[in-house]
Amino acid sequence: MSNRTPSQQAALDRSAALEHQVRAAPRTFRVLTGDRPTGALHIGHYLGTLANRVRLQNLGVEVIVLIADYQVMTDQQAGRRLPATVRGVVADYLAAGIDPDRSTIFTHSAVPALNGLVLPFLSLVSDAELHRNPTVKAEAEATGRPPTGLMLTYPVHQAADILFCHANLVPVGLDQLPHLETTRLIARRFNERYAQHAPLFPEPDALLTATPMLAGLDGKKMSKTRRNGIALQATEDQTAAMIRRAPTDSERRITYDPVARPAVANLLDLLAAASGADPRRLADEIGNGGAGRLKQLVTEAVNELLRPVRERRAGLADDVSYLDSVLDTGNTRARQLADATLARVHHLLGMTYANRQLRLVG
Amino acid sequence: MSNRTPSQQAALDRSAALEHQVRAAPRTFRVLTGDRPTGALHIGHYLGTLANRVRLQNLGVEVIVLIADYQVMTDQQAGRRLPATVRGVVADYLAAGIDPDRSTIFTHSAVPALNGLVLPFLSLVSDAELHRNPTVKAEAEATGRPPTGLMLTYPVHQAADILFCHANLVPVGLDQLPHLETTRLIARRFNERYAQHAPLFPEPDALLTATPMLAGLDGKKMSKTRRNGIALQATEDQTAAMIRRAPTDSERRITYDPVARPAVANLLDLLAAASGADPRRLADEIGNGGAGRLKQLVTEAVNELLRPVRERRAGLADDVSYLDSVLDTGNTRARQLADATLARVHHLLGMTYANRQLRLVG
Repeated sequence: MSNRTPSQQAALDRSAALEHQVRAAPRTFRVLTGDRPTGALHIGHYLGTLANRVRLQNLGVEVIVLIADYQVMTDQQAGRRLPATVRGVVADYLAAGIDPDRSTIFTHSAVPALNGLVLPFLSLVSDAELHRNPTVKAEAEATGRPPTGLMLTYPVHQAADILFCHANLVPVGLDQLPHLETTRLIARRFNERYAQHAPLFPEPDALLTATPMLAGLDGKKMSKTRRNGIALQATEDQTAAMIRRAPTDSERRITYDPVARPAVANLLDLLAAASGADPRRLADEIGNGGAGRLKQLVTEAVNELLRPVRERRAGLADDVSYLDSVLDTGNTRARQLADATLARVHHLLGMTYANRQLRLVG
Repeated sequence: MSNRTPSQQAALDRSAALEHQVRAAPRTFRVLTGDRPTGALHIGHYLGTLANRVRLQNLGVEVIVLIADYQVMTDQQAGRRLPATVRGVVADYLAAGIDPDRSTIFTHSAVPALNGLVLPFLSLVSDAELHRNPTVKAEAEATGRPPTGLMLTYPVHQAADILFCHANLVPVGLDQLPHLETTRLIARRFNERYAQHAPLFPEPDALLTATPMLAGLDGKKMSKTRRNGIALQATEDQTAAMIRRAPTDSERRITYDPVARPAVANLLDLLAAASGADPRRLADEIGNGGAGRLKQLVTEAVNELLRPVRERRAGLADDVSYLDSVLDTGNTRARQLADATLARVHHLLGMTYANRQLRLVG
């Protein structure tokens, strides 16, 4: 955390100022956030993003949550698993406290007008700018595959995701800042070229989350697809079994030393995050209790933290028609927003001929 | 025309075979074609593409004509001219003989579901494949600007334009073949990944037009924006004035020599195309009549050729509500086709949760 760039530090300072504004006037903010539906959400999502979304929602901010199903297209097999994954993510959201009466949950595929913004937005960035995006480069390296056209243009889709609903606040990690810069650039250029006297789009701000990044139980980045994070939907026994299998080391006395003892520190980080305590103090308390005591405490803390979430989830996870009705409602709301925005974009672009049906929507 | 590549020659041979099939079974073909609305259509369009569309329509082929308004986004000023340009293009189509009761005329901006195909299709091509497209390279060089994201991904939009309506035949020039290859690649990959047992998309064929490319009256490529072509909407006097201003040379005797006497040959080519005669024979007939006689004959032939087109056009060009009703009808038809295709794509991608309203369309 100490090797931040000046622009990252500036973003953190700006973000702290925004937190004050959010608390003072929550209804002046609209948040766009979301996930790719690649698997069950886990404790890392809960502590890192879900709890923050619920906090913002409960402050009175309008929260719009996108399930980015257009970003997970790979093959027919993955497609067969998609409905269960998407409904599972909806259940995770609701269990975590997203309230469908106040917040909007929707999927990409249900809002063609949102994707209709992608072409106009593609005209506002250059090939070279798309290739300079460091996150796109990093993703291409991480997957080991040459980037697809979808990956290359991802920051432009994200601009459409954010701007279709005029979101002015986007909770992101530091690594996502370059994407948001593309959104701000597109908003600015659109306004300059087509809406000089009355800007159409806000330049959304990043709300950087303070939560530290939790590693998975195998010490690698916690990931839905790697299944190294404790899923919200896991049972208490499954949680205990996963934690039992986590690596530790041969030293009995528990100390917090992320460099020399990464596996133990990893479990202490999880315990600290789940219980809200300091990892060094927790290590001292366990002392010679060893890895067994540590794992017992982690298991108890995680199961305690997730108990209310799991109880809520159990009550609705199998209710497909309810989950679909939540999506239907969210999709309808998202379509209204997207249709209205696309109509205004068309108007500014001069596309005012014929096509009156579309123009009346929203 | 002599330095064709083997693949171009193969495409020409294939195209000749397709012509036979079109005449034998026209109703098994659906053609997608169109124009960017950058200005009034001219005699080059009429002889090069419009007459061919009308011929195919009159043979009984279903013809779908796209006015690609999403491909001409530049600034607010251009946007202000767009409605008149688009309606002018519709008038040009109708005047040339496109029959809105049999053929479909629509605009990009009116069919969000068509643009909804762009994201799935972007996932099927690599960044490297997009950059290898020679037409994209040539366009970037021609405009002298670095390619935008829109230009880079243009072959993918074109794939959506063609595949949304399951067109199986696309009239193109030789220079457009690489674009069509991208469409065929996307159709093939989509079918392989998501529709192995029942392919969703045809791999459309190129129908290469035999018409030679006409140069503009200034000897440069005939272009809507350069205004060096005789517009369908020009009056007979405007036509005569344009031809009078065309360059010739100081030699009185008219001969057909495209290398040594390009300006004279250019006028002879136009005369030949408008009258259906051979340019060498026409030159012999004019002989010592000189440039004056040549220009008189070109003017007469062009005005003769365009007279019925211009008469039809005069009767409808100012009827904005009729032109818009033609677009409304075409847009509605295109939306039905696009909604049905997008619903099938979503189904194959596994996007079958919620979103029932959209699924019922088409």
